Amino acid sequence: MDTLVKQQPGAGMDVFFSANAVAVIGASDDVTKIGGRPIQFLLKYGYKGQVYPINPRGGMIQGLQAYTSIGELPGRADMAVLAVPASATVQALKDCAAGGVRAVVVLSSGFAEAGEEGARLQAELLAIARKNGIRLLGPNCLGTISVAQGVIASFSIILEQSMPPAGHVGIVSQSGNVGSYAVQNIARRGLGLSHFIATGNEADIDVADGIAALANDPQTHLILCCMETCRDADRLTYALELARKNNKPVVVLKIGSTEQGQAAAASHTGALASSDAVIDAVFRRYGALRVHSIEALLDIAHAASLLLPGKLPKGDRITVVAASGGFGIMMADATVKAGLTLATLTEQAKAKIKAVLPLAGTNNPVDATAQVSSRPDVLYGMLSALMEDPSSDVTQVFLSLSLYNTRLRGVYMEALQKIRANYPERLLVVTSQGPADAVKEINELGIPVFPSIDATAQGLAGLVQMGHLSNVGEGIPYQGVIESLDRNAFRNEYTAKRALATAGIPVLDEVVVTSADQAGQEASRIGFPVVLKIVSEDIQHKTEIGGVMLNLGNEASVRSAYEQIMQSARKHAPNARLDGVLVTPMVQGGAELIMGISKDPVFGPVVMVGTGGIYAEVLQDVALQAAPVSESEALDMIRSLKLFPILDGARGQPKADVKAAASTLAKLSHFACRYANDVAEIDMNPVLVRPEGQGAIVLDALLIPTNNVV
Amino acid sequence: MDTLVKQQPGAGMDVFFSANAVAVIGASDDVTKIGGRPIQFLLKYGYKGQVYPINPRGGMIQGLQAYTSIGELPGRADMAVLAVPASATVQALKDCAAGGVRAVVVLSSGFAEAGEEGARLQAELLAIARKNGIRLLGPNCLGTISVAQGVIASFSIILEQSMPPAGHVGIVSQSGNVGSYAVQNIARRGLGLSHFIATGNEADIDVADGIAALANDPQTHLILCCMETCRDADRLTYALELARKNNKPVVVLKIGSTEQGQAAAASHTGALASSDAVIDAVFRRYGALRVHSIEALLDIAHAASLLLPGKLPKGDRITVVAASGGFGIMMADATVKAGLTLATLTEQAKAKIKAVLPLAGTNNPVDATAQVSSRPDVLYGMLSALMEDPSSDVTQVFLSLSLYNTRLRGVYMEALQKIRANYPERLLVVTSQGPADAVKEINELGIPVFPSIDATAQGLAGLVQMGHLSNVGEGIPYQGVIESLDRNAFRNEYTAKRALATAGIPVLDEVVVTSADQAGQEASRIGFPVVLKIVSEDIQHKTEIGGVMLNLGNEASVRSAYEQIMQSARKHAPNARLDGVLVTPMVQGGAELIMGISKDPVFGPVVMVGTGGIYAEVLQDVALQAAPVSESEALDMIRSLKLFPILDGARGQPKADVKAAASTLAKLSHFACRYANDVAEIDMNPVLVRPEGQGAIVLDALLIPTNNVV
Repeated sequence: MDTLVKQQPGAGMDVFFSANAVAVIGASDDVTKIGGRPIQFLLKYGYKGQVYPINPRGGMIQGLQAYTSIGELPGRADMAVLAVPASATVQALKDCAAGGVRAVVVLSSGFAEAGEEGARLQAELLAIARKNGIRLLGPNCLGTISVAQGVIASFSIILEQSMPPAGHVGIVSQSGNVGSYAVQNIARRGLGLSHFIATGNEADIDVADGIAALANDPQTHLILCCMETCRDADRLTYALELARKNNKPVVVLKIGSTEQGQAAAASHTGALASSDAVIDAVFRRYGALRVHSIEALLDIAHAASLLLPGKLPKGDRITVVAASGGFGIMMADATVKAGLTLATLTEQAKAKIKAVLPLAGTNNPVDATAQVSSRPDVLYGMLSALMEDPSSDVTQVFLSLSLYNTRLRGVYMEALQKIRANYPERLLVVTSQGPADAVKEINELGIPVFPSIDATAQGLAGLVQMGHLSNVGEGIPYQGVIESLDRNAFRNEYTAKRALATAGIPVLDEVVVTSADQAGQEASRIGFPVVLKIVSEDIQHKTEIGGVMLNLGNEASVRSAYEQIMQSARKHAPNARLDGVLVTPMVQGGAELIMGISKDPVFGPVVMVGTGGIYAEVLQDVALQAAPVSESEALDMIRSLKLFPILDGARGQPKADVKAAASTLAKLSHFACRYANDVAEIDMNPVLVRPEGQGAIVLDALLIPTNNVV
Repeated sequence: MDTLVKQQPGAGMDVFFSANAVAVIGASDDVTKIGGRPIQFLLKYGYKGQVYPINPRGGMIQGLQAYTSIGELPGRADMAVLAVPASATVQALKDCAAGGVRAVVVLSSGFAEAGEEGARLQAELLAIARKNGIRLLGPNCLGTISVAQGVIASFSIILEQSMPPAGHVGIVSQSGNVGSYAVQNIARRGLGLSHFIATGNEADIDVADGIAALANDPQTHLILCCMETCRDADRLTYALELARKNNKPVVVLKIGSTEQGQAAAASHTGALASSDAVIDAVFRRYGALRVHSIEALLDIAHAASLLLPGKLPKGDRITVVAASGGFGIMMADATVKAGLTLATLTEQAKAKIKAVLPLAGTNNPVDATAQVSSRPDVLYGMLSALMEDPSSDVTQVFLSLSLYNTRLRGVYMEALQKIRANYPERLLVVTSQGPADAVKEINELGIPVFPSIDATAQGLAGLVQMGHLSNVGEGIPYQGVIESLDRNAFRNEYTAKRALATAGIPVLDEVVVTSADQAGQEASRIGFPVVLKIVSEDIQHKTEIGGVMLNLGNEASVRSAYEQIMQSARKHAPNARLDGVLVTPMVQGGAELIMGISKDPVFGPVVMVGTGGIYAEVLQDVALQAAPVSESEALDMIRSLKLFPILDGARGQPKADVKAAASTLAKLSHFACRYANDVAEIDMNPVLVRPEGQGAIVLDALLIPTNNVV
């Protein structure tokens, strides 16, 4: 059904933001109905274009002339809102196509979320839209709100009271409810919204379209995204990269971070669940900031929107200031736990603080004592010392509940205003619970306010990350051709390694032999000691059937080992097809990693690296990324392992050749992309990472084909 | 100075809560002064007892007859507040002693926090108090507030506006600022306070006194404690145990959880910093709930105060309900991340939900759809299905911003009231941001309301833990006699092991020999293979100087190894005193742990267990507890290790004899307590934990004496 070419993410989305005329199909006089509300909102919030109510009964609706069909309209509607029962949407969409409508919002439910018949209907809608070049939002969605333009195609309850203020935050959300909650809170915080897009069932337009549309929208400075599942990896990464290039930070609340949450998300959205770890890695790759709660999303959005464009922190050195030692300690704890650095103040700054506050503690946390709130010039003097200190990137001031005290509020506001005027480029954030009007007053100085010490630390960590938009790895996404892999590669360990070697992955000089004589000769050629392993596509666990012999030091022992292995294999696996015995050098010394490829239903080949040995499983010490990865990304993955210090020379271990390991991992990822259609899974276990300068080498490997390889 | 016997924690504290007469020394007419405020507050908030202003000028103060000294009072003041300069406090305290005052609050600053002279003054105050049986609060403290009794000995700014409502939450805080913040927020949430105690410099009364006093106070149901450092382990554990026995949950905000925070705390309070991990373990042992932010403290206090006494959760099975799939997923994520269990609903409950809400998703998270808010009976029907389901301990309902909508608020309130009336014993919590009056209305039904999904999950996890007050390990604290350890025990590995063996710690049958002949004979007696190790108190790293030889299979190789080791030792450590060579059985097979004892400046001997080998350090995989530990506590410590699964049979490893390991750890902890004065540190590394039933054995050990051992 979905065979027509998908649109590039964001293509044609501008109509939703700036339609000249909106037709509401299924229009109603009743403003509690989904066919009544959009008209009410369009009129109430000053939409400048034409509103065309469409209803078979015609007449007047909400004071406007109603039409019986799109065909009857006196002018062209570039956008239509469908508020008719699911069964009537197909005809309505055909009418839209005939009438030249370019953007359609299907508010109605009863589609894929409701069962098979609904899914069929949804597929039919999609086919019509694709065929006619219509961008389709929904079905089963809350629609769109464009604040500045007043273009509303939504029945959201949040518009009942008022329109959110216009501004620079754009929101795209799969869930209408979660998105609405974000919009409401953005408005409650006094922030401005550019556009809100709720994608619902995502028949055509998905979150990637939303991100791309907002990335291209000049009104939007910051993109907030709430998503449950990703249906199309290429579209998502395209959109994230577009936002990155256009310098629009993306903050993502991706929910379903636990297995249980993912299961709920899969059953709720009907989409295949990707590993949360993969999505997480992809967001990181494209510099999107992931948060794990809606409060964190809002806190960071709020702070960022006060700092954008151009004032995000340049570094992670934080100075924390409180009028109480106890709160200072909490701030130090939270700063460190959030992965930030407590700045080391210069002696000059300390002396300046002491000059205005003789009893102050001038180590960071700065204990400003109760004195600091005695007069604005004392507070100003202390803060200006910090503003002038180049050793700090951000100063955080804890105001306890002081803003509730009128006198103290006056002192603080006066000092903050003066600081802002004299040090406009320096970063200052406040931690305070309120009251709301005082918070607003501080926000108006361009100073972010967070509600708690933990929220401040988490928020600053997010802002610091946002200030360093990642560089996407070279050669990503995969640009090469997808090829077929010789079926023989899947046959056994030897053929798998040979195939991997074609991609430059380091394997040993080894050979399959079929006689004791040949084994002895090859071992002599390779050099002793050697290892012998049974080679058979039917034997998974070679060691357990006596199919492996290590550390063979001369030709005689190799010959005898050959016979022993063949005997043992025939005895323990009488039906196995035996391809022979692998003669391979005995290599020792180095750290063990495991590397592998698995297939994500959405992101395709995913490359994995982990600690080897029995610890891997217990510690879950692995790093993932969508393939391919560049060498520098591969290095970052290896460095992120918990046991990386052991490769890095901890406890007197030799430093391992992690560069060689990274190169191997990157090559594996490219191999997986090249043969993506044929390879389902690759396990390279162990990969021996030898001491620095000596390389890495794959000691065992397994390739598993996809079902469609014959 | 501090040689007079300390009071038992909590002793004599009742006077602070219920003094019949309060003398304010340094009384002032000026209500902005610390000598004016306490009088103002006592009068303003209806204190029933006598208030005696004391000022050398006499006359009238704030409408009361002032006296020139305590000696002049017409009656006895059982409590006095000192608001005079630091230099005048010594005489004032002497006057209090002479006048029969039993409780003194020193609000004045300028003591230990201000330098040496202040510390001397503080010690003098303490000596006077101890000698005269006076309990002294402070100096440099914010004092006390007893709400129901109106007994106020504080100049806290929070009393300027109003008195917090009376209730059942007691607060003790080292920091006056942090404590005030907690009191203010407790009041803002409409909760009631019993007593507030700020301990300041803690010359006499410390946090332990506060906890004990609140544990004994019938008005107090819940104890909140904010602490930076612990000065006396025995007092703290006594108080925590008293609270546990009296069934008063203790929630602790112990700040300084990072190294940086601890450093700040140490410099701020002048107390020695204990390892945060030790304090954490001690809290856990006594069933005190530790939280890491003031918001978490307040959220849990709020919820618990609605449920106490008797209604804390019986289990951790949570059912989460939202009118939106997206929020349900977030709730599932948060529940699982907080370590709670998502309940598996019964088919009966699912059917009942479907009966009222045909479109509902009845897996947990329950997706109640927008329908649920259509009528109170629909919501009631769904919730009653959950209330009747025995498979769930707590039901969590997410209300988004619905309570801001008047119609929805009506629907929700009606249903909740009916649920509360019909299922008074079932646990229900709500997640909602407000408005405040709606939250209050729900609280009045005895239903806790948390502000966010994460806060709810964290709060529920805390309540679940609170519902299961720990059993303190047997024989804790150490009840035995402290003895002297023979100096010889510290001499070398052999003597250390012999000493440990006296406590039943399993060591090998081994012997120190001084000739090759003797080595051969002893090896034959012990049985081959054996290990030989150099024995010298001057050689720390035996292997590095060639002082260890493994796996010696016969007498000849033992003799030759003896000579080799002695030669090597003489060559590489020419000045070392050599005691001989240890002949010990070669034992293999099993998992390696490290066990040890270190000395905490506050908690004394601390017992540690960790993963052995090179991973220990990289993973920081250790568990700590104040010694002694019971076998069951020791087992819990071992089970808490990240790599415990490897001892427990992961990846085909044999199950290790963890019971034997736990027994060894418990015995080590008792040994450390018995010889606490002499032993500074013990390292048993490795301890080989053999397969189940085969025991554990200490392969190497080191005892380090304290400096005072001669």
